[in-house]
Parts: sequence; structure tokens; C-alpha cells
Amino acid sequence: MKVGVWFIGALGDVATTTVLGARALARGLSGPTGLVTARDLFRDLDLVDAADLVFGGHDVREGNPAETALDLADKGVVPHRLAVDAGLRDDLCAYGERVRPGVAFGATRLVRRFESEASRERDRLTPAGALAALRADLRAFRKDNALDRVVVVAVASTEPRPELAPDALGTGQRVRALIAEAGPDGRAKGVEVPASLVYALAAFDEGCAYVNFTPSLGASPAGMHELALAAGVPHMGNDGKTGQTLVRTALAPMFRERNLNVLSWSGFNILGNRDGAVLDEPAANAAKTTGKDRVLGAILGPQLGTSLTRIDYVPSLEDWKTAWDFIHFEGFLGTRMHLELTWRGADSALAAPLVLDLVRCVELAMRRGRAGLQPGLAAFFKNPLGTDEQSFPAQERMLEEWVAGMSAGRQA
Amino acid sequence: MKVGVWFIGALGDVATTTVLGARALARGLSGPTGLVTARDLFRDLDLVDAADLVFGGHDVREGNPAETALDLADKGVVPHRLAVDAGLRDDLCAYGERVRPGVAFGATRLVRRFESEASRERDRLTPAGALAALRADLRAFRKDNALDRVVVVAVASTEPRPELAPDALGTGQRVRALIAEAGPDGRAKGVEVPASLVYALAAFDEGCAYVNFTPSLGASPAGMHELALAAGVPHMGNDGKTGQTLVRTALAPMFRERNLNVLSWSGFNILGNRDGAVLDEPAANAAKTTGKDRVLGAILGPQLGTSLTRIDYVPSLEDWKTAWDFIHFEGFLGTRMHLELTWRGADSALAAPLVLDLVRCVELAMRRGRAGLQPGLAAFFKNPLGTDEQSFPAQERMLEEWVAGMSAGRQA
Amino acid sequence: MKVGVWFIGALGDVATTTVLGARALARGLSGPTGLVTARDLFRDLDLVDAADLVFGGHDVREGNPAETALDLADKGVVPHRLAVDAGLRDDLCAYGERVRPGVAFGATRLVRRFESEASRERDRLTPAGALAALRADLRAFRKDNALDRVVVVAVASTEPRPELAPDALGTGQRVRALIAEAGPDGRAKGVEVPASLVYALAAFDEGCAYVNFTPSLGASPAGMHELALAAGVPHMGNDGKTGQTLVRTALAPMFRERNLNVLSWSGFNILGNRDGAVLDEPAANAAKTTGKDRVLGAILGPQLGTSLTRIDYVPSLEDWKTAWDFIHFEGFLGTRMHLELTWRGADSALAAPLVLDLVRCVELAMRRGRAGLQPGLAAFFKNPLGTDEQSFPAQERMLEEWVAGMSAGRQA
Amino acid sequence: MKVGVWFIGALGDVATTTVLGARALARGLSGPTGLVTARDLFRDLDLVDAADLVFGGHDVREGNPAETALDLADKGVVPHRLAVDAGLRDDLCAYGERVRPGVAFGATRLVRRFESEASRERDRLTPAGALAALRADLRAFRKDNALDRVVVVAVASTEPRPELAPDALGTGQRVRALIAEAGPDGRAKGVEVPASLVYALAAFDEGCAYVNFTPSLGASPAGMHELALAAGVPHMGNDGKTGQTLVRTALAPMFRERNLNVLSWSGFNILGNRDGAVLDEPAANAAKTTGKDRVLGAILGPQLGTSLTRIDYVPSLEDWKTAWDFIHFEGFLGTRMHLELTWRGADSALAAPLVLDLVRCVELAMRRGRAGLQPGLAAFFKNPLGTDEQSFPAQERMLEEWVAGMSAGRQA
Repeated sequence: MKVGVWFIGALGDVATTTVLGARALARGLSGPTGLVTARDLFRDLDLVDAADLVFGGHDVREGNPAETALDLADKGVVPHRLAVDAGLRDDLCAYGERVRPGVAFGATRLVRRFESEASRERDRLTPAGALAALRADLRAFRKDNALDRVVVVAVASTEPRPELAPDALGTGQRVRALIAEAGPDGRAKGVEVPASLVYALAAFDEGCAYVNFTPSLGASPAGMHELALAAGVPHMGNDGKTGQTLVRTALAPMFRERNLNVLSWSGFNILGNRDGAVLDEPAANAAKTTGKDRVLGAILGPQLGTSLTRIDYVPSLEDWKTAWDFIHFEGFLGTRMHLELTWRGADSALAAPLVLDLVRCVELAMRRGRAGLQPGLAAFFKNPLGTDEQSFPAQERMLEEWVAGMSAGRQA
Repeated sequence: MKVGVWFIGALGDVATTTVLGARALARGLSGPTGLVTARDLFRDLDLVDAADLVFGGHDVREGNPAETALDLADKGVVPHRLAVDAGLRDDLCAYGERVRPGVAFGATRLVRRFESEASRERDRLTPAGALAALRADLRAFRKDNALDRVVVVAVASTEPRPELAPDALGTGQRVRALIAEAGPDGRAKGVEVPASLVYALAAFDEGCAYVNFTPSLGASPAGMHELALAAGVPHMGNDGKTGQTLVRTALAPMFRERNLNVLSWSGFNILGNRDGAVLDEPAANAAKTTGKDRVLGAILGPQLGTSLTRIDYVPSLEDWKTAWDFIHFEGFLGTRMHLELTWRGADSALAAPLVLDLVRCVELAMRRGRAGLQPGLAAFFKNPLGTDEQSFPAQERMLEEWVAGMSAGRQA
Repeated sequence: MKVGVWFIGALGDVATTTVLGARALARGLSGPTGLVTARDLFRDLDLVDAADLVFGGHDVREGNPAETALDLADKGVVPHRLAVDAGLRDDLCAYGERVRPGVAFGATRLVRRFESEASRERDRLTPAGALAALRADLRAFRKDNALDRVVVVAVASTEPRPELAPDALGTGQRVRALIAEAGPDGRAKGVEVPASLVYALAAFDEGCAYVNFTPSLGASPAGMHELALAAGVPHMGNDGKTGQTLVRTALAPMFRERNLNVLSWSGFNILGNRDGAVLDEPAANAAKTTGKDRVLGAILGPQLGTSLTRIDYVPSLEDWKTAWDFIHFEGFLGTRMHLELTWRGADSALAAPLVLDLVRCVELAMRRGRAGLQPGLAAFFKNPLGTDEQSFPAQERMLEEWVAGMSAGRQA
Repeated sequence: MKVGVWFIGALGDVATTTVLGARALARGLSGPTGLVTARDLFRDLDLVDAADLVFGGHDVREGNPAETALDLADKGVVPHRLAVDAGLRDDLCAYGERVRPGVAFGATRLVRRFESEASRERDRLTPAGALAALRADLRAFRKDNALDRVVVVAVASTEPRPELAPDALGTGQRVRALIAEAGPDGRAKGVEVPASLVYALAAFDEGCAYVNFTPSLGASPAGMHELALAAGVPHMGNDGKTGQTLVRTALAPMFRERNLNVLSWSGFNILGNRDGAVLDEPAANAAKTTGKDRVLGAILGPQLGTSLTRIDYVPSLEDWKTAWDFIHFEGFLGTRMHLELTWRGADSALAAPLVLDLVRCVELAMRRGRAGLQPGLAAFFKNPLGTDEQSFPAQERMLEEWVAGMSAGRQA
């Protein structure tokens, strides 16, 4: 079995860390810490091995993944011994050669500023033209590497949300129409067609599974769900739950179950990597914080007073997302107390194993013929599609049921 | 229906806050925030109302609960408007008159230093003599107040653990033999018979349910479980899960489920109330921290490196338990990250609603004829008896099942 | 000796806490904790006693200071025993009767929303008309209470900064011209004349000393310095240094003196009182954060990478300003480390003693004939006028010199 | 000019980081961040250059500094690029060859467990015999490297404090008598003569300056001060002020100057390097925490309620000392507030530049003929000898005066 993993944002830190980690696992240079699918729970599922994955992808920048790995090692995100390992450097260079120019429709100014010439050229295509070009890349990847299946994973920087009417993408037909309509300026119905939508459609049209690890639009519209089902491919999103939101969704149920009122939950995130720089633009920031804020209300309902989430760009922090939460709560007889959290984690090191987990799970779903959304994988996402469940413990039970369903599928 | 609640440690902050709160609820002066049994989950159970509870208890000190309530208001633990309410002050004074002298066998030096003359006199009895005296108090309480059922709740200061062979209290017979053997110095088999054991036995012998909200011995020995079953009464313990341990048991499963290794989990607690002062004595401190430390290993197993828990007495903090946890964990490829927590809560305001919850649940179990341990109530305890489950989300599911069992009991 | 203290923002929490505290001191009900001028350093200065102060003021709202004090007690800002003391309640009521309607030129929408009818009426005056009305109030206060001297203290909510050319208020003449020009809409040169300027001018024109405890314009323009000298009165500002900035200016010199580079200093403030609500309006927020941010650069110079300060309104926190600072710094060989601070203080309880300190110091300066700015009092302010010194230890030395100068003045 | 630096504890992390850093500076591979003596203040002093330093030392373990440097790089204490630099590795190897076996009289069990055979052999000498051996090493170092002056710097693990009568070492004669008395078991007057005393005496007897960067006894007794003066050499100690205590002494004066009462200051330190492991032994722990606790009382006097300092060994933290301080303070009218600090710093990276600073300063003092204690260098120490001043801002002024005195010395 050979499975392709195609990254949107292939030269970023998350993709690079994922490839480095998968290859380190395959070469026996590192262990499975942080991989959810390495837990006993998954033991009886025939998930694809890291060694059977082939990586490629699109990116709007140029870059050398082996150099990026060294840089990540200097920043303490990955160990030096892996970044300087000759075999892994070869693997990363080979990966870099499988990266193709992307498109930046609807992206932030920062993303466009660092775009490569090859990507700028693709941007001059209409979205429909871009769709064709992206599909051709996917076909070539599959063919050149003799892949059984391909999973497309979006790990590009956050896109601003396009201002479209709620049902503008409500059917597959409308999605296709919007893309067809847009001219060489990339615009239709007054908005720029977001690249993430085009990438997701390319995946479906080529029979690839799709995972949206970002808060960008991707395959979240109802019309895209229809198209995934029609294509017979599984997909899931949005926005990997790596740090502060993970902790929030583990803790908020505790307050609910103890019947404590959360008067206010205030959270501040600071980070300094490219993702952080992109979030310095208000539209991208709004796309990101909206999702983070929603989870608390979903869990606590009327037990939540106010919530606040801010993300700020502080360059010196690089990949080390640092988050402070101040939870002001009210107990018996109205007594007011608080809980304070500070999280300090390397975003890419947190994201990479989850990306591998999702690839393994979605690939299995595809192999088992389970098309469409996979809400059983909600635990991996800040804004899981197809479910309103935000409690991490409840999502863990959903995951256990998903695994049970897949085990059953195997026996059948 | 009239239900008695008999506190061991009746003049302490937890008992006082509980009585104040129950009466405030009964008088419609405060709401049910913090009461787990006020959640929808419990709606269909015919739990006893706060208004139907009558409070009394034992204490080794003298004191005036109405004055204690004012003091708690000055310290920000309960609202001033309740502490100065004339009706509630009357209720607290009436409660104070139902408090009887206790015994201090095996207690810390600090507890003994503040003992009342009446209690010192009881200490001169043999444990068997004390048992008879305590039982007489319980009988009088039940009779004088025409109570249907009585729940005894231990909320006294932490006792040092007696150094007994593991099976010295392994059967009911051995428990009774130990108490019978002890002379007027309170000692048998080289140890002082701990008062908490005598109190628990008095409860069982008088057909009362028993809840151990402290880490003291109480009804935890196997012999006591046998005696509770023989007496046909339910009981549960140990040590109310109010603050830092609650948060730990909500968060630790998250690390387990994300397959992250916790390299070290270090926790420091500082507090300044009488409980804290008692914990300034090493033997009591050990009795307390041992339990707190155990929960992490139970949840994380081999994913836990080291853990450390300290409790220190800092007088100025009064009832405001302040706890810092530093969780050092390892993710993908060995990258090391951390999560830091600071909890600041009023211990008595956190404990009081849980005490009421346990009274209501255990009373119902007694009414339904469910004798013996109630592991379904594990979520309320740091060291739940009758189960190894320490994960708060898992304990919540146990609680849901317990409720379902009780609902079924009703229909039967 | 009788000294008048006239508050701009007389019904706010800071003024109320100050009056309550001064009267509690005068009545021997509380001690001098938090009063800088109670330190030994000031022992030989003949500063005015709290008992010799008479309080009055302007406010744009209506309110009852005795009720506000009860409210502050419920929020834990002042002790209940003081808020319910009969003598102090009388003092607060008498104070309330000396409060006169203010003006709200240039204020935020929120301030205007809660304006009293009497204040709205004054807003209909031209700024020149308002100046006359405010002056008349000051004259009446002085005469009615037979005051030797009056200190005007601005403690009103933050005003947005008017967009004026830098030198538009560069001379006394230009200040007077701007006010004279403005019509009944309160506008001149395209801006609304800010009320804080008119209040400050009223103080000078009535021979009162003036302290600006807020970040509003007040007497900061050069033209106002000229007018204060002409009037022969001392003044100082801006913006009382009560919490996070105090800690920052105590700590930043440590990094400088250890030659450690501060890569980034990120600070988040959350608070829920009226000040916080006003800061929810972007223009007021900018007026506030600009000052807070500046201090770090002033101390650290090129040793500072980036700095960030945010203030957010979180209603449940009320007067309890909660601030988190994350200081990311670089040591020897480029090793990156951090220091994290969480400050949780009651803003009014922090501000009130400093207000009394400033009244006492400025009154003495006035008595000694020291007109104009008092940079020796820089330690009390976030943005001290007349000096660039922001280091708290250095400001402490300036204060010691100021005291020495005043002592010398006494002997002379 | 060639200056020797002789480390006691030469193979530990602090010594290794210091040598690596000095050589990196000499080779132009790193900058002076963190070096106090690189500040402008010191510009006009003719301090010795890093390039003119030659390093050697004693250690009771064996080890390879170049390997230690790689290990420190893996732990994030020093940058990888320096640890793998060929020139620096050569420098570290050459340094390793200048390290001689030490003695472990009075050391903790842990230190003894890892002792080399060569050191164990020296331990069999009497203290007087050891003194002669250590002196011979110093003489050889000076001669072999043609050094103008030598500074001995103690950076070994903390020794338990010997239980000696206060004046047992009150004169130089008594110091010499104690050492002369002790037999091959290393004991005299019922205590083991501490190695740190013997090392310090060896320094003085060989005309070397001496810096005690540890809390061990070293040259702190009055008798040693006498001997230093007799030998005409400068010395200073004790215990480098690198982290939590530095922050405490910068912040405590702020509370004093604002007349705020510190009700309690509670501090917890966790660390995992060899220093931490040594502190796991109670006697060493007491030697360390006693000093840390004293500073707050010295600054705050009666404004301090209680203080508490704990240091715990948490292996996973390695060199990254993590410290939490909870400062509970009382402001105006008795309102209680708090400030919380978390410090996370690499101990060796914090200590190394201060070691270089002290070498440079003490060498200059020696060159200028300033024998005896140097209290002007108090800012570098947790327990500065020769002064009671603990306030960091006040110590900074003492340092400025010391520099001025040395500048004057130059002109003379």
C-alpha cells in the first residue's frame, strides 16, 4: 500500500515538521509520542504506516524543506539530531522537489508579498483555470508515485473569510457556478473566490480525501459536502485543535458539570511564526478568533457570561504559541474565584502528529468506502464539521465510537 | 420527610458554610450555583430539599456559627448580606445549640491545643466509652428532631494516618476488637485509635449513612465496609475533590488521550485556614499529599514521569487555597512544552455545595436501600473508595450511570 | 489649616474611595497602609493632615457616595465595616452635597450616555461659558468652607485625545484663544475642546493647584505650564501609576542593568469598572495604551525589541484590574528565557492613597510657593510631565530629592 | 596581560558555559548580552578582555567539557552552533586538560557518589595535606601559563553548612588551627572541615583573588576576611544572584516605597540539574533556602508578614530553573491583592556572564591593590558579604560608586 499526502502550504512549518516526523518514524529515529493513532485504542485498525506515506504539495512560496528543518531545530521545535540527519535531509529534499506552485486567490497581503513568481503566474489564471492546473498536479503526483490513494491536507496560512450570502455555496452546483463565473481577476459575486475552496474542489474532483487543518473556508460549505459525497471521498475540518482550545474544551465541561458559572473567560494568544504574522491582518484574525471563541459558548451555554479571545503577533516568540487564559467563575452563594492558565507550546510540534493522525484515519475511511464528513474525528478540530459537540471528553467518546465503527467495517 | 445532617467538625468553616448555604437556599436568599445535584441530570430524582434538612454535629472546639459566618464574610468566602441576615443568624444559632463535644483521639497537636474542656473530658473515656457517648448524641438528635434518616458527614481537620498493619482493620470483627481493646489512653496495638474511625462506627451502629469528606481514616478500612453492609447503610469517601485535584483530573486525561508524555507534574498549594494550620504538622501533611499525588499516576500510568505535590501553610491566605501547577510535557519528536495553572478558590465555598450534594445522594441511596459503598459518586472525591477511576470525565459518566440506577430504583 | 480637595469625576470609585479613606484616617478607623507620604521619608515635612481636608467636586453623573461605598464594599474594594460606619456615611453624604454638575466636552459616548440633566445643561454652554461656571463653583467651595488652599484633582474617565497640531496649545495665549473661539457646539479648530483642559484652566484661574491622575489632556500642553506659572500654582500629571505600569517600571531597570535584551514585552489588562467600559471605545483606549507602552522604551532603549499593551473590558472583573505580562528576554549567548507576571489589584484601592499623597505634596508645594510642574513627583505617574525618567527606582531618588528640597524650604 | 580563572567545580554546567562563552567572545562568535561589565558604565575601566583569560580548575568528578557543551546545547542552554564549533571544542578540550582532582570534605552524599578515583584519593589526605595539594595545583597553573594574576571562583554544588560555634572561625588563627587539627577523617571540633574553606584558603595562600558564587561557606567567616587582607587579595561572595532572588530584590523595594504591606511572599523553585539533585538532600537545601528567604526581610522589615521559599528537584526540568512567586499584599484600608511571578531561565546561561563580570571586577581590584571584601559588588550576590543592603536598585548604586572608585584609582 502506498498513500500520498498532498499539502496545501507544503513549505510551511507544519508540513515540514510532519514530513520530518513521518520520515523519522519510518526510519526508526523517533517514537510515536503525540500521535493519537499510536494509542492502544487504534491497535486493531489497519491504519497506514508512516513508512507507506509519500509527501508532496502546493505552496505559493519557494523554499527548501531541509533548510526549514534546520531553522525549526534552532528554534527548539524539532531536535537538532533529526534536522542534521543525512537520511532525513535527503527525504526532505526529495519532498521539496514534489512541491508545485500554488494559488493565492483571496489571501492576505502578507501571503501575497512572499509569493513566488511561479505562483503569481498561476494567480493570473481564472479560478476555473487554476482548478485544472491543481488537478493536473494531483494526477501527476498519483501517477508518478504509483499511489493507491491520496489525502489532501490544508495547512496553509489563514485566509480571510469571503463575504458571501449564507447559501451562496449551498449546493454543489452553486459552488461550481461560482468558480466558473470568476474571471481572470479571480472575482465572482463581488468576492474573490478563496483559494482554499478551489484546492478542496480539486481534491474531490481527483478522488482524494481532504482534511482542512486551518480555519479557512475549504470544504466547509454545504455544497462541498454534497460534492464530496458525489465523489465518494471522506473529508473533515476545520482548524486543528492543538493548544489553547484543546485545554479549553477539556476544562470547560468541568465547570459545567460542577454547576459553576463562568462569569468571564478571557484568553490572549501571542505567537511569532508566519501564521502569527498573517493573523496580524484584521480579516484573517477575525476568521481565526471567531472559531476559538465559539467553543466555550457551545459547551457552557447559559453558564457562560462573556468570553474574549485575542491573538497577537509577537515576532520573538516564533513558533512558540504562548497563551494566557483567565477564567473568572462563580461558585456557591456567589463567591467569585479564578483559574489562570499559561500554555507554551511549539505549534508545529503540536500540529504535526495530529496531521498524521488525520491522514491515517481519513485514508482508512476512504479505503472502507465511508464518504463524506467524519464527525467522529471532531476531537481533532476547533470547529468540527457535522457536529455541535465541542467538549473534548465527549469528542473522545465519539472517537472511540468511530474506531469501533471502523473495526466493524474491517470485519465486514 | 425530615433528614438530619450530622457533622464531625461542626464548627469549622466547611460545616458553617454548608449550613448557611442550605438555609439560604431554603429561605430563597440564594441560588443553587455550585450544586451538582441542581443540574438537569438530577431533575427526575426525588432528592431531599434543602428545606427538609436539620443540622447538628460534633466538634472538639467551642464556637458560635453565626460569628464564624461573619468572619467568613469578612474573608470574602460568603456574601455579607447573608452573614448579617437575621433569619439566617437565628438558623445558625439554633444549629450551634445542636453541636455536642467531640473526641480528639489521634489528632494533631494543633487540634488538641484548641480543644474545649467538654471535649477533653470525653477524651478521657476509652474509645469504646466514647463510641457509646457519640451514639447517644446521634440517637438524641434523631429523636429530638423527629428525623426520618440521618447522614453523618466528616468535615473535621485531617488526622495523621495511624501506623497499623494493612489488615488490622480487615474485618468488622477486627475493627470492633481494636476499639474494645483500647484503654483510657486511647491506644491499642501500639497506635492511638483514630477518632474518625470511632465516629464512622457510631454512624453505622446508629443506622446512619456516612460521608467522609476528609482524607482521615473514617470508614475506609475493609472491615468498615463490612459493617456498613451489615448495618444496611450507604457510605462513601474519601476527601472532597474541590480544587487543584479537580482540575488535575479534568486535565490529565487530555494528555493521555493526546498521547503526550507528562515528564513532570509539580504542584504547590498554599492556604491559611485551620485546615492549612493542621497540615503544617508533617504527619497530617503526609496524609493529605499522598492522596493528591496518587491521582495523576492512576490516570496517566507510564505516561507520567514524576509528580510532586506540596501543601504549605501561609496564614494570610486564610480560606483562599492558592495552587500552582507546572506541567512539563513532551510532544512529537520529543519537543518539550508546558502548561501552568494557578487556581485561587475559597475552599469552604467550594466544599459546601458538594457536601450538600453528597448528603442528598447518600440519603436517597439509603431511602432506596442501597447499602455499602457508592463508587458512582467517585467524582466528588480525591480518593474515591471502591473504584480506581480517577479521570473526572470518566467519573462523570459513572455519576450519570448512578443517577440512572437510582431513577430505575424509583420506578421499581 | 483647612485645605480643599476638588475632584473632577467626584462620584467615581477613585474619588469615593479617597474620601472614605481620608475620613477613616481622620476618624482613626483605618491606618496609613499604601500612603507613600506616611513613610518615614516624609516625617519632617509639615504635610496637611487628612483631618484638615474638605472634599468637593464636579461630576457629569448623579450619585450618592455613601451608596457607592457600599457597592465598593460588596466588590471587595473597601472593607464592609467602613462602608456601614454611621460617621463615615455622614461624611460621604455631606461630600455628595458638595458635588456640582460637570461638563462632558470631548468625552466618550459612554460618559455622555450616563450624563445627568444638570450636566447636559452645562454642556450647552460654550467652553468659555463653562469655564466661568466651573470657576464659580470653585470660588463658592473655597468661600463656603473657609479654605486656605484648594487642590483640584482630575480622576474622571479617560477622554479621547483631541487631534490638534502639536503647537496648537503651545502658549497660554493659544490656549485661551482656543477656548474663546469655541461656540455652543464646543468646537474650535475642528476639534471639540476637551473638558479636561477647561477644568484645568478653571483651577489655575482660581489659584488652585492641579493634579491630573488621568491620561486625559488636562494641563499637559506647554501653554498650560505657562499659565500655571503665571498663576503661581504647582501642578503635575499624568495618569496615576497604580498597577501594571508600576511593576513594569520597577522591573525593566533590572533587565537593563543586567544587560539582558528584552525581545518582547507583551501585556494584557482586563478590567470591568466604569474606567474599563470607557476604554471599550477605541479612541479612549488608544489614549490609555499609548502611555502605558511608552514607558518600556524609555527605560530599555535599544535593549527592547517589541512591546504590546492591550486593555480589554471584562465586566465581571469590576474594579479588580487583572494584568498579565509576558517578558521574553535573551541572555548570554542568545539563550531565550521568560518572566511572566499576573497582577490582580483593586484599582480604586490602589489609586486612592496616591491621590491623597499627591494632594498633600502639591498643597505643600503651593504653600512653599513652588509654582509650576513638580517632576520630583514623577514616581506617582505613568507619564510624568517635565521629565523623561520612567525608571521607578530613579523616580524614587527624585522623590527623595524633592522631599529634601521641601525640607530645606521649610527651614528657610 | 594574562589572567587565570580557576574554577572550583570546573566540570559543572556553570564553569563549562562560562568557558564556552568567554572563548566565543574571544573568537568573535557571540556578543556580550548578559554581561554587566559590557555596559557603558564600565567603558572607562581597563577590565581584562575575555581573550586574555586562561581557564583551569578543580573538580571531584571526571568529565569532558566539550561533551558537556553538546549536552547543554541539546538542553537549550547554549546554541548548537557554538557547541559544534571546531575552534571552541578545541578550547574546551584544552581547558579539560587543565582540570585537576578536587576534594569533597563535607559534601553531600550525591557529590560523593559521583566522585572520581583521583579525588577520592585526595580525600584521604588530611585537610592540611589537601591544602598543600590544592596550592600546588594553583602554583603550577600560574607558572605553566605565565599568568599575571589568578582569580579562583567557586561554582561547585552547594555544601551543607557545618555546625560550628559562631566564632569558631572568627580569626585567621582559628581558621588555620581548625585545619591543622583535622585528621585523615577530615574532622575537627566535631565537624568535617568543609572543602570550600580549604579551597578559599588555598586561593589566599597563593595570592589569588577569590569569588564565591555558591552558598557554601568558602571565605565568609571573619577569620577568612582577615586572611584575605593579610594576603593582600580581594574577595567577594556569596551565591550568585541569577534568577528568582534577582527579581525579588528588584520588586520588594517597590512594595516598601509604596508603603504596601507584604502579608506573605511564597516562592517555589523547581529545577532538574545537578545543583537541583544536590539540593534534594535536606542539609544542602537548608543552606540554600535560608539565604533566599533572608533577602525579603532585609528589604521589607516590618512590612513583611511571612515568607516561604522552597526548592525542589524535578529532573525533567534540567537546567531550566522554574520559579513561582505569590506575593500577597495589603493596600489602602486593608484591601488584599496579589502579584504572581513565574520565572523560567536557564541557570547556567544566567550565571556564566556574571561569573565573567566578577572575574573582571575582582581582577581589577587586585591589580589596583584593593584587598579584602568588595561590598560594591553586592548586586551580583544573594547574600553579599560586607553589607546588609539587599535592594537591587540600591546595590546598583553601590556598583556605580565602586566603578567610580576604580576609575579614580586608575587616574591615581
